[in-house]
Amino acid sequence: MIYTITLNPTIDRLLHLDGELTKEKNNRLESIAYDIGGKGHHGSFAMSKLGVENQALGFCGTTNKGQLDKILEQKNINHDFVEIYGKPTRESYVILEKGISGSILITEKGYDVSSYAKSLLFDKIEEKVEAEDTVLIAGSMPPGFEIKDLEKLMMLLNKIGCFIACDLSGEALKTAVKSGVNFIKPNRFEIQELSKQGQTLVETVKELTKTIDYVIVSQGGAGSLCGHANEFYQIKPPAVVVKNDTGAGDCFVGSFLASLTQQKSFVDALTFATACSASKVQYNDSSSFSVKDAENLQKKVVVEKID
Amino acid sequence: MIYTITLNPTIDRLLHLDGELTKEKNNRLESIAYDIGGKGHHGSFAMSKLGVENQALGFCGTTNKGQLDKILEQKNINHDFVEIYGKPTRESYVILEKGISGSILITEKGYDVSSYAKSLLFDKIEEKVEAEDTVLIAGSMPPGFEIKDLEKLMMLLNKIGCFIACDLSGEALKTAVKSGVNFIKPNRFEIQELSKQGQTLVETVKELTKTIDYVIVSQGGAGSLCGHANEFYQIKPPAVVVKNDTGAGDCFVGSFLASLTQQKSFVDALTFATACSASKVQYNDSSSFSVKDAENLQKKVVVEKID
Repeated sequence: MIYTITLNPTIDRLLHLDGELTKEKNNRLESIAYDIGGKGHHGSFAMSKLGVENQALGFCGTTNKGQLDKILEQKNINHDFVEIYGKPTRESYVILEKGISGSILITEKGYDVSSYAKSLLFDKIEEKVEAEDTVLIAGSMPPGFEIKDLEKLMMLLNKIGCFIACDLSGEALKTAVKSGVNFIKPNRFEIQELSKQGQTLVETVKELTKTIDYVIVSQGGAGSLCGHANEFYQIKPPAVVVKNDTGAGDCFVGSFLASLTQQKSFVDALTFATACSASKVQYNDSSSFSVKDAENLQKKVVVEKID
Repeated sequence: MIYTITLNPTIDRLLHLDGELTKEKNNRLESIAYDIGGKGHHGSFAMSKLGVENQALGFCGTTNKGQLDKILEQKNINHDFVEIYGKPTRESYVILEKGISGSILITEKGYDVSSYAKSLLFDKIEEKVEAEDTVLIAGSMPPGFEIKDLEKLMMLLNKIGCFIACDLSGEALKTAVKSGVNFIKPNRFEIQELSKQGQTLVETVKELTKTIDYVIVSQGGAGSLCGHANEFYQIKPPAVVVKNDTGAGDCFVGSFLASLTQQKSFVDALTFATACSASKVQYNDSSSFSVKDAENLQKKVVVEKID
């Protein structure tokens, strides 16, 4: 069983304008769509799509729970959240202008997480997660959830003995590495926080894999540098027409962890996750991808062994 | 009793950013506030604040009714809406950048109004409104509410024989004037639709007052040109520091109609409404004003008689 933990989820409100956003005029909306934001949820979506049993854990507000539940149902995301009573799950406003690439993002801060809510989450995890499970902690931390809380969470998971995957950045990423973790996926900027002076990227990955089972450095459209059990690879995705690369990394992580639980080899899991991610970027939203496309794209993924 | 009719209400979501809105970055929100949009509702708010009995009529969606009711309660707006089942009241997003004046407005189209919903509204009006009442129709028309529906509404109100005030624009304003109306408040652009070739503004107002009891042309910060029963005035507001002029016209209309029902003279109603409006523009939101401030400001309103 895979559990994903999203501490700071959002409801994404996609505002599709009928033109360019302009001050001092009435900017009319052509349509509105809703999606769920949060790296863990996007990972869960990919896992469910690949038929791998999983459950999304974390916090959610109660005042807009109906709306959140509707999206989770549409996305087929099995979940069990700790409710933050009387507060809404924060929203993100994604403004999309007609005929203009890129988007404008406005995000809410979200609720403050109380000590009680944190203890409820820890209790739930202790009750559910077993040694043979995989847990993915992904995304930012909400107000009230501190580094010391993350340390406590890592300690709990390490005590249980499950496989721990973290898609975190900054201080949270450092904390995860220090606490003991089985999988990390920093990007080329985030990895610098873990790099020693004068180390090349490959040297950093090689050193990190001494204590971390899987180290994957995402390099955007250029692919990823991956290390596991003394094997190191540069992975290059096939060329595709990119519509929206938001969520591509989450799709990679979800597909990769799903593949591991399906007993795929390291290289097979890497190439399949890269292909799922290459399918994702061809869609307009933050999570959709086609498994059939991914199976075709996987053949075109280039794997270069690094000594 | 005054009834206001808002056919196309909105819930205004005021997004206060912590800086300037920028593409390709995460624009963080400092706070969110909610207000009710719709010219009729703003008019009702002013009337209630001045202690004049009124009720807001019109349409509203059901799926976000809890949110709407909360705002209406806070604003003390007595209402009786026809519900559009299973649809939300449309929202407007008002983006306010820290330290930058003006706002960025994004509006939803809103629900389609069915024939059944329209007949429910007409039935409600027929049942409630009496000859001695005042009815204010204000704001835009929602999808599905056509000019022929407005004609039908005007015909119904004329049959009842109540005082009819319209704050409309374009084709809707023309329809109201053709159907018979007691009060209009076009701005200097909207009045052009009613003006004959070569006519000056004063000539247009003079001609319109032959069939319309009260004609008020709003000129923004410059005041208004007003005509009633062969009396014509140029009204000039006192100088104030403008924070937000959104809703200033609605505050004027609400205060003016409230004053008329309180048996104030034309000039007294004009100067008081101008003062309320001058108080309003000193507030950040779209409806707040101070009655005490308005009473002081009224003394500074300049009235010039036009022959």
